[in-house]
Amino acid sequence: MNIKDTGITSPKGFMAAGEHVGIKKFKKDLGIIYSEKPALCSAVFTKNVVKAAPLKLALKVLSENDYIQAIAINSGNANACTGEQGYLDAVDSSRELAKCLNLQENQVLVSSTGVIGQLLDREKILSGINEVSSKISKSEKSANDCAEAIMTTDTFKKQITVEVELDGKIVTVSGIAKGSGMIHPNMATMLGFLTTDVNITKEMLDKAFKSNIDDSFNMITVDGETSTNDTCLILANGMAENKLIDKEDENYQKFKSAVEYVVKFLAKQIVVDGEGATKFLEVNIKGAYSKDDAKILCKAILNSQLVKTAFFGKDANWGRVLSAMGASGVIFNPDKVKISFENEIGHVDLYENGVPYKFDEDFALKILEMREIKINVSLQEGDAEITGWGCDLSYEYVRINAEYRT
Amino acid sequence: MNIKDTGITSPKGFMAAGEHVGIKKFKKDLGIIYSEKPALCSAVFTKNVVKAAPLKLALKVLSENDYIQAIAINSGNANACTGEQGYLDAVDSSRELAKCLNLQENQVLVSSTGVIGQLLDREKILSGINEVSSKISKSEKSANDCAEAIMTTDTFKKQITVEVELDGKIVTVSGIAKGSGMIHPNMATMLGFLTTDVNITKEMLDKAFKSNIDDSFNMITVDGETSTNDTCLILANGMAENKLIDKEDENYQKFKSAVEYVVKFLAKQIVVDGEGATKFLEVNIKGAYSKDDAKILCKAILNSQLVKTAFFGKDANWGRVLSAMGASGVIFNPDKVKISFENEIGHVDLYENGVPYKFDEDFALKILEMREIKINVSLQEGDAEITGWGCDLSYEYVRINAEYRT
Repeated sequence: MNIKDTGITSPKGFMAAGEHVGIKKFKKDLGIIYSEKPALCSAVFTKNVVKAAPLKLALKVLSENDYIQAIAINSGNANACTGEQGYLDAVDSSRELAKCLNLQENQVLVSSTGVIGQLLDREKILSGINEVSSKISKSEKSANDCAEAIMTTDTFKKQITVEVELDGKIVTVSGIAKGSGMIHPNMATMLGFLTTDVNITKEMLDKAFKSNIDDSFNMITVDGETSTNDTCLILANGMAENKLIDKEDENYQKFKSAVEYVVKFLAKQIVVDGEGATKFLEVNIKGAYSKDDAKILCKAILNSQLVKTAFFGKDANWGRVLSAMGASGVIFNPDKVKISFENEIGHVDLYENGVPYKFDEDFALKILEMREIKINVSLQEGDAEITGWGCDLSYEYVRINAEYRT
Repeated sequence: MNIKDTGITSPKGFMAAGEHVGIKKFKKDLGIIYSEKPALCSAVFTKNVVKAAPLKLALKVLSENDYIQAIAINSGNANACTGEQGYLDAVDSSRELAKCLNLQENQVLVSSTGVIGQLLDREKILSGINEVSSKISKSEKSANDCAEAIMTTDTFKKQITVEVELDGKIVTVSGIAKGSGMIHPNMATMLGFLTTDVNITKEMLDKAFKSNIDDSFNMITVDGETSTNDTCLILANGMAENKLIDKEDENYQKFKSAVEYVVKFLAKQIVVDGEGATKFLEVNIKGAYSKDDAKILCKAILNSQLVKTAFFGKDANWGRVLSAMGASGVIFNPDKVKISFENEIGHVDLYENGVPYKFDEDFALKILEMREIKINVSLQEGDAEITGWGCDLSYEYVRINAEYRT
């Protein structure tokens, strides 16, 4: 596996662009991804029952057609809670994008992130689509521009490329993502777009993509919120000309590993860039009764305000970890739980068999002063395990989310 | 209904005391409640699967005996996650309390709140029980002392008394509570102790008490955390000599209303005193499909970090309210939802039928500048409704919970 920091134009046949078209005040706010050939699309959307207009439209388009050739993504306005007019704006944006690139309406998607409850500026979005679609290219700069155009409160762009060799052919998987914030209001919207030139069936693409999403984008949390616009999708145009992947063979596994690397990398980058975050937390649950239990426990720890503030305060507060687990709804025996904190400094055992260890507070503080910390929890109830990622809760989080109007 | 600010010695036959015995550095840390006659006890405990030692003991005692005559409550140490030794400490504390007051071991309870994962100082707690039990009295000062002794990060004591007349007899219900914080670590432990001289059967007492808890203490949230020590109980000694309440008649309803007033008052006081809170939020859900749905939606709003920081920032951010509802897991039609904010200044309609109102931002700000704000949500799905209470998320919350060691 070959890893590069290049963007979504790295796989064969993909082009991109990103510009400032006036939705945001100064920064780039419209990106376009284009594939020379129709590309199979596999996608997951927010589980929030409140879905933004572009998601409603995307669900309709993808129910009718598996192949997509272009996506326009705007930041600065989420086109969510905008009623019938919002849906019409998404439809008209799609139409404009299709027209500009000589495609059919059902071959394109639109995606939005930003302020909720405000109508898109139709003139700006339609003329913007015109302008940006005229600038698409294979260049590395175009890929970077597109990665920047989807950012909201992100402090850095998130992109990665992975190459694998399948029977002598190089297959490339690239991805960009944004998170975790909207400008107004911040809803921690997560967007992820992957491009790949792999030759694969729809069934195998869905399998490789969706199983990886469960263990990556669905295992991160900044503040426990699920936005109205969360979207993650992959386009596969087959131009690597590898032998068609149509079953779970060795080539499938190689491709799946490449996708896994891309989505886990992007997911973790989102958490690293979490609003106000000073700590990057990895929670490893082991010995749970089931994977569902492990997930609930993992997220309960990562979403606990008390756990998060303890890490912001560099406090080896295993009691808050145990209590968050206990309140999660999962049944387990607290007397069999083992908790330790760990990173490159070393590890400190905190709790086992119903009683706390007398640990070295100074050494624990050294571990907690580092940016990255692993919270290891073993339950001794079964064989299920999971890893999730999150961040601490800082003054800065409160400031960003309370004072954005000032 | 007659309402007073007096404490738990107001009902006939109840005495109390509260002193500093050395578990905390300076403040009162041990309270005792005593009934001259055996009192029926109805109790609810934390749903956290991690239960502190005194709760394990209380569950055992109450499974064997319905009548309790004395309770000792210490603050400063939760006696939680303390293993076998912690349980023995709770048993020995109970034994000491029973001995001092000439009672049987199964007629007394102990309760703890404070630091987790540290053993009680046996000498201090046992000599403290001796000292405090020698000082119990009916005086108003004793009741106040007891209310103060159970406080941790509380900034004021919480107590209330309600009198109702049942067939010419005055029946009194009093209560004290503490919340929402522990000293180290803060886990938002909630303790509530009610005393009453009502004459009632165990079945009717349970009914009146537990149904009210569901709509009061179980409908408040400061940070979504459920502690290892949460306890709420009522002692009823029958000394008001009203005709025995043994069915859901008029007297039962009057008594139940008195209990409702006490527990709702105490629950709201806990939220008003929520760590770092600058806003007191009341969420009213109407038109939900079921009461369970209404509860989930209500708590999803009150526990959303984004909703809480928006209110701290005085931002009329209805989008965060709707998104928190949408991510709660409850199925509803967002296009039928109506959201408004309201208080003594007036009310502002924000969202209806899938689209936002163009509301007066200046007027909304006036509403949001007040301390108390109602968030009214109507779903038009059914007839179920519920009210819950919470607070905002401020810098001060982060400071209290991150920096308590400094």
